[in-house]
Amino acid sequence: MPDATQRTATIIGAGTIGLGWTTLFLAHGLRVRVNSRRADAERIVRDGLALFAPTLPGGAADPAELATRLEVQPDLKRAVDGADVVQENAPEDLDLKRQIFAQVVEAAPEHTLLLSSTSSLLPDDLGADLRDPARVVVGHPFNPPHVIPLVEVVASERADAALVRRAEDFYRAVGKAPIVLARSVPGFVANRLQSALLRESIHLVRSGVVTVAQLDAVVVNSIGLRWATVGPFQAFHLGGGPGGLRHWLAHLGVGLEAGWRGLGEPPMDETTVRTLVDQADDAFAGRTYPELVADRDARQLAVLRALAGS
Amino acid sequence: MPDATQRTATIIGAGTIGLGWTTLFLAHGLRVRVNSRRADAERIVRDGLALFAPTLPGGAADPAELATRLEVQPDLKRAVDGADVVQENAPEDLDLKRQIFAQVVEAAPEHTLLLSSTSSLLPDDLGADLRDPARVVVGHPFNPPHVIPLVEVVASERADAALVRRAEDFYRAVGKAPIVLARSVPGFVANRLQSALLRESIHLVRSGVVTVAQLDAVVVNSIGLRWATVGPFQAFHLGGGPGGLRHWLAHLGVGLEAGWRGLGEPPMDETTVRTLVDQADDAFAGRTYPELVADRDARQLAVLRALAGS
Repeated sequence: MPDATQRTATIIGAGTIGLGWTTLFLAHGLRVRVNSRRADAERIVRDGLALFAPTLPGGAADPAELATRLEVQPDLKRAVDGADVVQENAPEDLDLKRQIFAQVVEAAPEHTLLLSSTSSLLPDDLGADLRDPARVVVGHPFNPPHVIPLVEVVASERADAALVRRAEDFYRAVGKAPIVLARSVPGFVANRLQSALLRESIHLVRSGVVTVAQLDAVVVNSIGLRWATVGPFQAFHLGGGPGGLRHWLAHLGVGLEAGWRGLGEPPMDETTVRTLVDQADDAFAGRTYPELVADRDARQLAVLRALAGS
Repeated sequence: MPDATQRTATIIGAGTIGLGWTTLFLAHGLRVRVNSRRADAERIVRDGLALFAPTLPGGAADPAELATRLEVQPDLKRAVDGADVVQENAPEDLDLKRQIFAQVVEAAPEHTLLLSSTSSLLPDDLGADLRDPARVVVGHPFNPPHVIPLVEVVASERADAALVRRAEDFYRAVGKAPIVLARSVPGFVANRLQSALLRESIHLVRSGVVTVAQLDAVVVNSIGLRWATVGPFQAFHLGGGPGGLRHWLAHLGVGLEAGWRGLGEPPMDETTVRTLVDQADDAFAGRTYPELVADRDARQLAVLRALAGS
């Protein structure tokens, strides 16, 4: 549980990411104010709790119990009044987010942690209108934030080390696995890795080696299992035997570069998109979106709980 | 359990891959002959069974019980006499493997499935010295073969469809998840995907965004968990909401290509290798190779069993 100095969080935005954070923070005992100007915000937030509370990795929570610490507040300044933490989840629009943070600092206490879920904007830009532009820290979750442990923490190079540590400590206190990037890079880390694998996946489907369904089956039955267990460097470190990564690179380092030159660079043209979409229609035919989501979530939770217990 | 027509398997080679297959095939009730000319082959195979039998995903097996169906046979022709299946695991040397298959067909029955664990050679080349060069089928496992489900099945374009189906059925009968590639491509599928992700991983470490240990933590806590559960296409299909992959590509397809242009192309020079090796030494300091392997295997089995049960 977060320490006594971080007991009240404000969630800006009631989309999927905001609702995931809301559920998670409430489940860890925080009081949460959700800021949204949507007329049906109360209902949306209650529906979100009902949807997400059963799939918390630590065990299902009672949405009614969570709601006892919840407030929906359409006014931004009132929403951040007295908040220890603000987690912003507005659309990926730099001007909008800058305006939001400029308003937040007028009403929030001096000690408030200013966090943004942005996947693409840089912390210096988000804080550009503030007296201390380095005060905004990116805390980018991997969707859905109440389930997947990773939070990429990205701060301005001029940010105080103590501020970054506070952000990291906060995420750890609500059960996340924060990773602090030494510097910001477009797409941060997880999405860049995902993008690299997706490029080769699309290339292999486009060139007719495997179908969309087969490509997914390859991943789920090999590298996915492996990387849920150990990361790529540890996998190769162990693949190198007792000599470790040193031995592995000495034997395969040159082959790596040759292999990289042979990887695909598929164009995302009409043919590519049509091939992917048609094969996806085939692959997922006969199962509805809610069925597929429920199946994914059940498997995801089974994996997370198995890893927590092992 | 394999049907009555495939009850005897010959494993050529008593390295790690050969021993993994041996343990798996014995656990599925096959009689197994291991062909190795090493003087201490009997001991190596018994040690392999003792090491691998506890980590079979279906549950630990008794090595002594498995050994009742085991024979070690140093003579290749005697080893394949009457075999229903041959799984070859010799070093990645085309001439050597061609010679092996040429000898195998002289002594094995007409119906014997000829399978190769090669990760880099093509089926047509492996069978080049045979009357029917399309008879050899690649069955490339993901290490270790007794644990990880994937087998990439790669056949000659001139291979009979019934032959490919027999190979696929055989692997399914011993609990594997065979994927038949429509055509062969260097590195097949899983290793190409792995290589694409590793390139970007090395780039991010080399450019100082994250350390080796952090990169591994990012993967294990996000995309690894996801891809143990659903493949990349299904993940984006669900990420697209009820509109699926079609909706997702319509909104993000162009951004994908721009992102790919920004991915790294790290040189595997001395600086890169030293950075990786030094950071790996830090990351894995204080834990021995057997400790790290035991930890990986325990987590791997926990994930596999959780997925089998969900």
